[in-house]
Amino acid sequence: MTAALPSHAGVTDIYFDFLCPYAWRGLELADVLRREHGLKFRLRHFSLVQGNHKENPERKSPTWWLDQQVSGQGGEMQAGSLNAFLAGQAALRQSEDAAWAFTLAMFRAAHQRAAGESAPDFKNDGVIRALAEGTLDTAQFERDFADETGLRAALHQDLQDSASLGVFGTPTFHLPDGHIAYFRFGNLVTEAGAALALWNLYTSVLTDGARIETIKRAK
Amino acid sequence: MTAALPSHAGVTDIYFDFLCPYAWRGLELADVLRREHGLKFRLRHFSLVQGNHKENPERKSPTWWLDQQVSGQGGEMQAGSLNAFLAGQAALRQSEDAAWAFTLAMFRAAHQRAAGESAPDFKNDGVIRALAEGTLDTAQFERDFADETGLRAALHQDLQDSASLGVFGTPTFHLPDGHIAYFRFGNLVTEAGAALALWNLYTSVLTDGARIETIKRAK
Repeated sequence: MTAALPSHAGVTDIYFDFLCPYAWRGLELADVLRREHGLKFRLRHFSLVQGNHKENPERKSPTWWLDQQVSGQGGEMQAGSLNAFLAGQAALRQSEDAAWAFTLAMFRAAHQRAAGESAPDFKNDGVIRALAEGTLDTAQFERDFADETGLRAALHQDLQDSASLGVFGTPTFHLPDGHIAYFRFGNLVTEAGAALALWNLYTSVLTDGARIETIKRAK
Repeated sequence: MTAALPSHAGVTDIYFDFLCPYAWRGLELADVLRREHGLKFRLRHFSLVQGNHKENPERKSPTWWLDQQVSGQGGEMQAGSLNAFLAGQAALRQSEDAAWAFTLAMFRAAHQRAAGESAPDFKNDGVIRALAEGTLDTAQFERDFADETGLRAALHQDLQDSASLGVFGTPTFHLPDGHIAYFRFGNLVTEAGAALALWNLYTSVLTDGARIETIKRAK
């Protein structure tokens, strides 16, 4: 299958939602691969709230868009993920390393919590700013984060592209050669050699001549 | 994860439904692996009609069982798959090679048709007998196929085991080490070396330390 949209040459797009613990593990894997092995990834947003919304029965042609919702409205997940994505889009205007550091800080705050620790409230700008402080140029972040129109337009592009590609969960990796698949694994992989071996295993599945479509555990 | 049921030592159970073209490719792969590489497989039945039945919302505890339905009743898929499974169970009472030959003949009749050729009607015993003639001891098959009570009990065991394991589609391979996963691929693999490479790729995914749960293409 040739994907509906071309990837950037040599760059793998990684679609993620901050809500998803599997996306967190996928991002940590990709971060090791880019830092230790020089692979190139582009951070892209996919919204599970939008993807699973009852007004969006057709995966490829949503009618309800997260980027078109009023900030703070809807349930916790909707309001929190919209604000998190807008902050993530603002971070993408800084250096690649800074954007990754902020994105990973958001994910770790959400999913690497001690037992009993409560989840961060991403619709609270104070929570976002605290994470930005450790990772970004905060003055630039404040200016960029205030550009709501531009951030929503950038988010819309990610949501449009992921919908067109048929993304249904995160993390989904869209390889430069057009292969694209959801990749869910349960154990964090941070060692450089193990990360490369796992990536090679994943890409081997996608490029095998048998045209593997799904491997999914029964449970 | 340790599977809920132990496999036979050294033997991989392959769960399949004659309705499913992916199960056909999985069976062809397994047949190459057992003939060319000495791997051991056990033929097991899983019913998609039962698995997707509206009266079975809980995958692991069905209330509607295919083996408890009246022969010939229900829709085409129900009646055809019940009769096909009973014939398959009868074939399993013969030699391993004969059982595989019959099972593959059933699959090929169902899925390896020329364009425009109509699907075989497995609820018609004449269709079943024609396939048995080329592959089985037909006198023994007639006696075994008449033992409806015994065949239904054997089918029930397969349906019970697959339900307990959480099987949801076919083919699903249950490895001797307890790993179990749906494995869907689009291209027939019949060359011995390619078959072994594909099998090693699949089992590598299941045994990787990252605990891979799902790889599934977006489309």
